[in-house]
Amino acid sequence: MIGGTSSAKEAMAALQKRNPALQPMLAIIQAGEDDSLLEINKKMAGRIGLNITQICLAKECSEDEIVEELLKLNEDPRVHGVYLHLPPASLTSRVLNTLKPEKDVNGISDLNMGRLVRGDLSKGFVPPVASAVLDLLENHDAPLGGKSVLLVGEDGPLGVALQCLIERSGMVALKSQWRSKSLQTQVMQADAVVLLGAGNMDVPPTWVRPGAAVIRCEPTLETGTVGCIVIVIINVVRSGRRWLQEQQYRPWQLRSLKLQPLTPVPSDIEISRAQTPKPVDQLAEEIGLLPEELEAYGRSKAKVRLSLLDRLHAQPDGKYVLVAGITPTPLGEGKSTVTIGLVQALSAHLKLNSFACLRQPSQGPTFGVKGGAAGGGYAQVIPMEEFNLHLTGDIHAITAANNLVAAAIDARMLHEATQSDKALFSRLVPSVNGVRRFSPIQISRLNRLGINKTDPASLTPEEISTFVRLDLDPSKITWQRVLDTNDRFLRKITVGQASTEKGQIRETGFDIAVASEIMAILALADSLEDMKNRLARMVVGTSRSGEPVTAEDLVCYCVVFCIQRGTPVFVHAGPFANIAHGNSSVLADKLALKLVGRDGFVVTEAGFGADIGMEKFFNIKCRASGLRPNVVVLVATVRALKMHGGGPNVSAGAPLPREYIDENLSLVAGGCHSNLRKQIQIAHLFGVPVVVALNVFRTDTQAEIDLVCQLAKECGASDAVPCHHWAQGGRGSLELAQAVNEAAMLMCFHLSFSLTIAKKVYGADDIKLSPEAEAKIDYYSQQGYGSLPICMAKTHLSLSHMPDKKGAPTGFVLPIRDVRASIGAGFVYPLVGTMSTMPGLPTRPCFYDIDLDPVTEEITGLF
Amino acid sequence: MIGGTSSAKEAMAALQKRNPALQPMLAIIQAGEDDSLLEINKKMAGRIGLNITQICLAKECSEDEIVEELLKLNEDPRVHGVYLHLPPASLTSRVLNTLKPEKDVNGISDLNMGRLVRGDLSKGFVPPVASAVLDLLENHDAPLGGKSVLLVGEDGPLGVALQCLIERSGMVALKSQWRSKSLQTQVMQADAVVLLGAGNMDVPPTWVRPGAAVIRCEPTLETGTVGCIVIVIINVVRSGRRWLQEQQYRPWQLRSLKLQPLTPVPSDIEISRAQTPKPVDQLAEEIGLLPEELEAYGRSKAKVRLSLLDRLHAQPDGKYVLVAGITPTPLGEGKSTVTIGLVQALSAHLKLNSFACLRQPSQGPTFGVKGGAAGGGYAQVIPMEEFNLHLTGDIHAITAANNLVAAAIDARMLHEATQSDKALFSRLVPSVNGVRRFSPIQISRLNRLGINKTDPASLTPEEISTFVRLDLDPSKITWQRVLDTNDRFLRKITVGQASTEKGQIRETGFDIAVASEIMAILALADSLEDMKNRLARMVVGTSRSGEPVTAEDLVCYCVVFCIQRGTPVFVHAGPFANIAHGNSSVLADKLALKLVGRDGFVVTEAGFGADIGMEKFFNIKCRASGLRPNVVVLVATVRALKMHGGGPNVSAGAPLPREYIDENLSLVAGGCHSNLRKQIQIAHLFGVPVVVALNVFRTDTQAEIDLVCQLAKECGASDAVPCHHWAQGGRGSLELAQAVNEAAMLMCFHLSFSLTIAKKVYGADDIKLSPEAEAKIDYYSQQGYGSLPICMAKTHLSLSHMPDKKGAPTGFVLPIRDVRASIGAGFVYPLVGTMSTMPGLPTRPCFYDIDLDPVTEEITGLF
Repeated sequence: MIGGTSSAKEAMAALQKRNPALQPMLAIIQAGEDDSLLEINKKMAGRIGLNITQICLAKECSEDEIVEELLKLNEDPRVHGVYLHLPPASLTSRVLNTLKPEKDVNGISDLNMGRLVRGDLSKGFVPPVASAVLDLLENHDAPLGGKSVLLVGEDGPLGVALQCLIERSGMVALKSQWRSKSLQTQVMQADAVVLLGAGNMDVPPTWVRPGAAVIRCEPTLETGTVGCIVIVIINVVRSGRRWLQEQQYRPWQLRSLKLQPLTPVPSDIEISRAQTPKPVDQLAEEIGLLPEELEAYGRSKAKVRLSLLDRLHAQPDGKYVLVAGITPTPLGEGKSTVTIGLVQALSAHLKLNSFACLRQPSQGPTFGVKGGAAGGGYAQVIPMEEFNLHLTGDIHAITAANNLVAAAIDARMLHEATQSDKALFSRLVPSVNGVRRFSPIQISRLNRLGINKTDPASLTPEEISTFVRLDLDPSKITWQRVLDTNDRFLRKITVGQASTEKGQIRETGFDIAVASEIMAILALADSLEDMKNRLARMVVGTSRSGEPVTAEDLVCYCVVFCIQRGTPVFVHAGPFANIAHGNSSVLADKLALKLVGRDGFVVTEAGFGADIGMEKFFNIKCRASGLRPNVVVLVATVRALKMHGGGPNVSAGAPLPREYIDENLSLVAGGCHSNLRKQIQIAHLFGVPVVVALNVFRTDTQAEIDLVCQLAKECGASDAVPCHHWAQGGRGSLELAQAVNEAAMLMCFHLSFSLTIAKKVYGADDIKLSPEAEAKIDYYSQQGYGSLPICMAKTHLSLSHMPDKKGAPTGFVLPIRDVRASIGAGFVYPLVGTMSTMPGLPTRPCFYDIDLDPVTEEITGLF
Repeated sequence: MIGGTSSAKEAMAALQKRNPALQPMLAIIQAGEDDSLLEINKKMAGRIGLNITQICLAKECSEDEIVEELLKLNEDPRVHGVYLHLPPASLTSRVLNTLKPEKDVNGISDLNMGRLVRGDLSKGFVPPVASAVLDLLENHDAPLGGKSVLLVGEDGPLGVALQCLIERSGMVALKSQWRSKSLQTQVMQADAVVLLGAGNMDVPPTWVRPGAAVIRCEPTLETGTVGCIVIVIINVVRSGRRWLQEQQYRPWQLRSLKLQPLTPVPSDIEISRAQTPKPVDQLAEEIGLLPEELEAYGRSKAKVRLSLLDRLHAQPDGKYVLVAGITPTPLGEGKSTVTIGLVQALSAHLKLNSFACLRQPSQGPTFGVKGGAAGGGYAQVIPMEEFNLHLTGDIHAITAANNLVAAAIDARMLHEATQSDKALFSRLVPSVNGVRRFSPIQISRLNRLGINKTDPASLTPEEISTFVRLDLDPSKITWQRVLDTNDRFLRKITVGQASTEKGQIRETGFDIAVASEIMAILALADSLEDMKNRLARMVVGTSRSGEPVTAEDLVCYCVVFCIQRGTPVFVHAGPFANIAHGNSSVLADKLALKLVGRDGFVVTEAGFGADIGMEKFFNIKCRASGLRPNVVVLVATVRALKMHGGGPNVSAGAPLPREYIDENLSLVAGGCHSNLRKQIQIAHLFGVPVVVALNVFRTDTQAEIDLVCQLAKECGASDAVPCHHWAQGGRGSLELAQAVNEAAMLMCFHLSFSLTIAKKVYGADDIKLSPEAEAKIDYYSQQGYGSLPICMAKTHLSLSHMPDKKGAPTGFVLPIRDVRASIGAGFVYPLVGTMSTMPGLPTRPCFYDIDLDPVTEEITGLF
């Protein structure tokens, strides 16, 4: 008997000390039922504390059957090793190489054999018989260095494995054959002799040098000794340990794609195409995601499973950076490119783990005027076609879910209008095989109605009526249908005009899909459970008696949940910034923060100017997530600053006035002292240090750039730096990355949420509520929604509600036209002035230029 | 110099004879610029006809850079071998194992080394130096059998490789070390001596037996001889040959999942979950799809690239089976389960390659009354949740594309109504950097208008007006919006009621998404080019002057094409059977026919009863595809036959009358002689043999089953067999599979398309056109659409237009209420009676039962 069980016991104890929950398991696949040696092995494994599962196939099982079992075991995370107890004829090349090498505790797959030969023992497994022989040699004759071992017979993989092990432990391996004429000489000179596949053969004892060991060795476990199963067990424990290591956080080994920026900067689509996106499975491996946490969507996209949050539970979060902007011109000031450039610089140049978490772009604007939302120049998300079109289909799923709720509302009103209480009840609680039962959701509705009964037969006619009738007031349905298309003609429509709807017409409308409350919920939920609860709470309208009617009353939130079960990606969710909070999802940020690790960075973006985008990020998203950013990056451009300093009007389509092309320091200074200063102050209200990122355009002069940086610091920014990411990629954001990295070391002040947004953020003197707004506020307070956070729906083109008031306006009264609520998402949104929830198409929409080449299958015309 | 270049030349010539287009290429990665030996090698490769590409990295290049190049070469289909001309320190484990083993012509990856050790030379590569040594031994001393070779020194992978090769060629390998005391004895006894990594060492010539060879051997190519590069070249050629073999059709090696049906049959979702779906990449490998032809969507779904059609161009098509049905009861008679059961039987039991091509189910009915469309019992598509929800998002993409067209129509009407000719022209043909240019689509519109100009400045005001104004007649817009939701309130709506639309209101409506003409086009297109052309031809309405206006006029067909670029899957497309042809896609069938090969089967399904589903399959789908089925499987049930024989009314929700539960042979006979006979005759009109599949229910008696089978054959069926797939899976369809296999051997009659559908198929005496229908027919004829095939929109519950006329009605006149056209898809559809294009939701829709468990992430409630 070689060795003992003690080494295996020790290894197991050490493993379980590191993770008491881990129960390593060995799976044994065998053909035929009984085998006494296996019984012994199982007993020993039991003594050591190893779990064993035994799969008995028929004696004459086919290769397919073995392969099927192996594939299952490959996928089973509980199994750490598989032992093939099969006749040699069944150990075909396909069988041996179907088993995952990391579970091949016999070390017989081609890959493990190759690793052993090349000397990489960190990954594979050594065949137990070979290990056992080496143990014997060590016990007999340590130290081994310089000793010679003669291997006699058997030219198979076992012989090769042994030879490699012997040589690697410093001994000299010599080979001989039974028929060799020099066999006797060789035996007499050897310090040890290993007889391989000897069968009845033996070497005469007289040949053996005194003190030399003779080891007889068979290639299979069954005829081997107890020592072999011990080594199998040690291999399983080793596999368990490796599995555990893999589960733990590990530093990234990110391989950056080489970027060699061209001058002049080519079109976005050319830049996107010039790069081969890294296959998503490779990227995942580099950033420490496990294969089972990934669900590929094509070659360059994947969804990530939420189980990641459990796995990296103990891992400290990385640093959290919010990119916001000063009040923009209608042309936009490049927040997305700053975000992407910053991440490029942090990861490729400062070698810090970092992640950008972005919103999924709506297809409406993509085909209307915007033409894509993937950043631009050498700071963009690739492949941009996939980013802009469909992605993984989340917006489509939200559209489907939102509209199912809408269809359910109208259908329910029709059914209530045309059916008796009894008919409704017998359809809502149908008799299945003669038995009527309430579903759990129905019982919960009964409870809300104060009816504490569970037997449908026991309800009184009044209770039945209360139960079956939501009695929705058609004029008070707040739920709109949605489409991911800029379709202005759907803003206000009349539905139900076909004769089949029996005159139940009403006015309603469509919003752009990303304006759906369901999108806001997807972005705010911090677990599937939380998402489901928020969906149930969504208020879709009001009953004639004034009670809110929820998705739970409609019994449709579960299906909505199923349609849009969103496994996060890091481009995840895209709620409409006009009426919702306009941030990417909480879950994606949380996943990314775990993945980057303590010193890493997660950069995310707020919509519009800091007064709305950042304010909502803090008051709504951070409140939902419990996360706090370490740094705010405030994006400014010389162009926008000049506008705020009093420059002439800027509008899309019209040529830029000269003031924006020529140097004009006084306009720049004016913008810094008004809008930039105010936006920095707003960030400081939330206690977060600000780094100003000046997105440099070709026409900006050095004096202008220097002035902005100087004034920004005077206005309280921790730092202010120019950025050239659009033309240079990550290298152009290097200064920004360094500034952000330094600012993230600053102490974070505590947050104060109790400010009045209108006064402290916008600079208004007061607010003025319209009668509708006042009535709504009364109603919401009465329904208990008074404590929900506020999500202002205000223009992004000014700090005030008046798009043409630039700089930092004061002395105005903010008018609140109406107040609406996304109860499920969990916020109330006052409408300041008119906000469109369904954009339109221009006369020449950018889809005119979009085409697909049927030969290359490339999409052209996106920009 | 070992060997010559002749062997490499011969190998190359043989390869290029098999495929003259193939140009094998060797990629050399080197660090640093110049290397004279490489130059020599390149010259030699050139002489032999091998292409070489050289990648020069910097001398001190990083591991990441090498890995990046390797990943690119791995993906490059032109490169058949990669030679790593790098310093030993750069040949890290990561570098060696990043290179795909099938391109590792040096044979140094762990996997290739393991293959060599285990003796599997069919896949990997032997290290060239080892091959060269073996060549030398062979030249010097053949035959080799029994000779002994002594390997001296070097314990690395090369030594192991050599030793394995020597032993495998029948020689005896012996090992020794330079310091071994028995070295001299061993050398004297050896037939050949190989000195590994000898450096300055040597064995004295006096030790060597007369006639014995001494080979000095270095592990790297550079110091090796010309022979090594020859072997590298041969390895590249070998790689090219393997690549070629992989590209060719190969018989399937399908591993069936084991099915052990339970009694009673569990719910569909339980059955679906009890199986682990095969990972899609594995399935692809088994059926001969290449990895690069696959785009994974999660673990069990993938899209397949159309390049497959090119690759398997020369491969004969398999046999093509259409599953149709007799006129069904409202409960459905199980065509999908027959389809899936048949394929299970053909593949798992008859071991014939076979494919089911199915439609993608609409989510509307899934959440309404149907609850899923994946088949059922032990004959269903798994995983059913993914099949029923979203799949790969094609329906969503069609929804987005359809509605973009709708938004473009209304926006265009608004813009034309509110802008002058000049304003429209300057927006449609904008000045970019001072230059106005027509896009190609605009030039093609000008040509259609008879304006043969390309310079925007040269248009007269009249021409500008003609060009910019589509002048759509709002009352004649035929394009509807769509949603994949059963939303009856959208059947007829008024849009444009918001004040922003300036009073441009009009009545329109939504259809269910699968009713979109774009879905019909996706299903009928036989290439991307064809799809694009059909999309351009779609007619969306009529101008006030009576001209049809197309998607091409709206300049939106290209973007539509991009949104829904459908790479086929075999569940592909799902046009609405009510108003379109209701078949899965032409492309999926074509791909599948190539994949299954000559003796394989592709089974697809027609909607509704054979009078509509099958008729449209022949007249519309087969006309578009040029494909002809070999067999029609006609599904019948005892229940439906009894109904046609005069049984009482059957309706969903109500209990089945006794006639359908007790044996009643005369009702069965009545149904066979009326409806079944007629449906068989219809199939024979198209010249295809019919096998009747009787889908057996638990209540059917043996006498009833026997009677149907006997009468079906009397009515002209080639065969008629009972099926038990629902309860038994494939085994229950074995008889059907055999019958189909035999019927497919029958000669196919020629097809006749020239029948009058109403008379020959439905059995009507005549048709009666409404005034609207007559007017439309006149208009379509005048526009040149008169020759398009007819796609009848008729009830599926009777051969006639009257759902309650069962059996095979005669003596009736078929009323044509209206005629519509899908010009892009390429058919005209007469409406017979009222056909809904937007289903509604029942009082208790089945989404009441659908839920998602937030912990297991499983969807419950689908059935």
